[in-house]
Amino acid sequence: MGPPDPRPIGVFDSGVGGLTVLRALRARLPGESMVYLGDTARVPYGTKSAEVVTRYSLRNAAFLTAQDVKLLVVACNTASSVALPALRAALEVPVVGVIEPGARVAARASRSGKVGVVGTPGTIASGAYQRALLAERGDLRIQVQACPLLVPLAEEGWVSGEVPRLVARAYLAPMRQAGIDTLVLGCTHYPLLRGVLAEELGPEVALVDSAEATADEVEALLRRGAVRPAPAGGGSLRVVVTDTPDRIPELSARFLGERVERAEHVDIQAG
Amino acid sequence: MGPPDPRPIGVFDSGVGGLTVLRALRARLPGESMVYLGDTARVPYGTKSAEVVTRYSLRNAAFLTAQDVKLLVVACNTASSVALPALRAALEVPVVGVIEPGARVAARASRSGKVGVVGTPGTIASGAYQRALLAERGDLRIQVQACPLLVPLAEEGWVSGEVPRLVARAYLAPMRQAGIDTLVLGCTHYPLLRGVLAEELGPEVALVDSAEATADEVEALLRRGAVRPAPAGGGSLRVVVTDTPDRIPELSARFLGERVERAEHVDIQAG
Repeated sequence: MGPPDPRPIGVFDSGVGGLTVLRALRARLPGESMVYLGDTARVPYGTKSAEVVTRYSLRNAAFLTAQDVKLLVVACNTASSVALPALRAALEVPVVGVIEPGARVAARASRSGKVGVVGTPGTIASGAYQRALLAERGDLRIQVQACPLLVPLAEEGWVSGEVPRLVARAYLAPMRQAGIDTLVLGCTHYPLLRGVLAEELGPEVALVDSAEATADEVEALLRRGAVRPAPAGGGSLRVVVTDTPDRIPELSARFLGERVERAEHVDIQAG
Repeated sequence: MGPPDPRPIGVFDSGVGGLTVLRALRARLPGESMVYLGDTARVPYGTKSAEVVTRYSLRNAAFLTAQDVKLLVVACNTASSVALPALRAALEVPVVGVIEPGARVAARASRSGKVGVVGTPGTIASGAYQRALLAERGDLRIQVQACPLLVPLAEEGWVSGEVPRLVARAYLAPMRQAGIDTLVLGCTHYPLLRGVLAEELGPEVALVDSAEATADEVEALLRRGAVRPAPAGGGSLRVVVTDTPDRIPELSARFLGERVERAEHVDIQAG
């Protein structure tokens, strides 16, 4: 399968939520170098149109391919749900989104065949999870819910107590009524709210974190030699954002689980 | 004071929140034509840096001056708090922001001299309200609070009931403790949450809506002839957005109080 490939893995997201995907990747693949791009000057993508999200995604990918990445991970659910075809057409390296891996794990995990998906308005409206789940397993009954309040709750660190519990209860009531046994956390911010979501649904409902599923998929690509792994030794990490990086030390501690003191700032075109 | 000036008044905001300012302007000045630009492809500004907000604001202003406006209203609190000097330096027409008018009304309204300001993280961090209030009245004691959850609550129409009440209670607790008698609603979305905010603070606290105060200021400029008013007859309205206008009919009904069925879409530079 040829010599090791020291080029980094590129990861982009609309902001800092994708750091939960980066976290899973780094835990799984400590030898790989990674470049993370957070488009914080345009965050969030979840409330914007497919056209605008695709345009921003192509630009993020162009920045990362200029960093000579060997593989691109689209760590943003909204971008994965609308921009993957355009990204795959434009790039020569493999492109992994977060939708298909999460859908695959959920389709396998469900015994009752009743699966729920929570995500941003953009992700839910795209129908991407619904299509990916049915492609895995045609007999699934799928209940979806857009949850626009969960991203600001997670970013503000408002992840336990009465407010997130009531918000979760309102969003999840139709899920409970539908009797789902598996819930896909279809947004990279939602793992931070895992506690309240799990509490509202009860212990009999399995929560599927797309970040973990995506890291599994990337690991499999490297193991199968579809992309050659890095040479032995520790991988490096660069974090780049399009707005000023002032809040990155704090937010990286929360989302990545390690404090990134020196994030770089880049002005992607005149955006 | 010269012949009437039929040119429109230009209004921009990061998204749809500024429609509450447009609403106040149209109620006050029904004869004036208006062009509203909502930068919905980059919304929100409130969580972004001053540098990025200034860049976006200059672009929005350039679009509106190309529409030959006679006056520019910056209907976004975040943009008003960081970009006014740059806008005034760049433009030849008068520029009115929402901070100074709101601060003026609040400074006059307060008897106790204890004034509260709620706004986005960007607005509060800029210190613009604090400076404007102290410029009006040096003896004020000012309590500020960034309220990042209120914008998504207003946009989702979640404006009454337990969730917004608990969120408002958490944000306003320090205000109550400080004994304010006047609260500035320092974000164009907040008038939609006026009910729960007023309920939490009690009837003895006056709420100042910057939209109304700004419309007063624009009316005064026209009355004093600083800008010449339109000729007799009804003014026209154009609403332009940078993302697809799919949700504008619904959101304009909520924020503007009239349903704009045909908003235009414009792609401001390669943003």
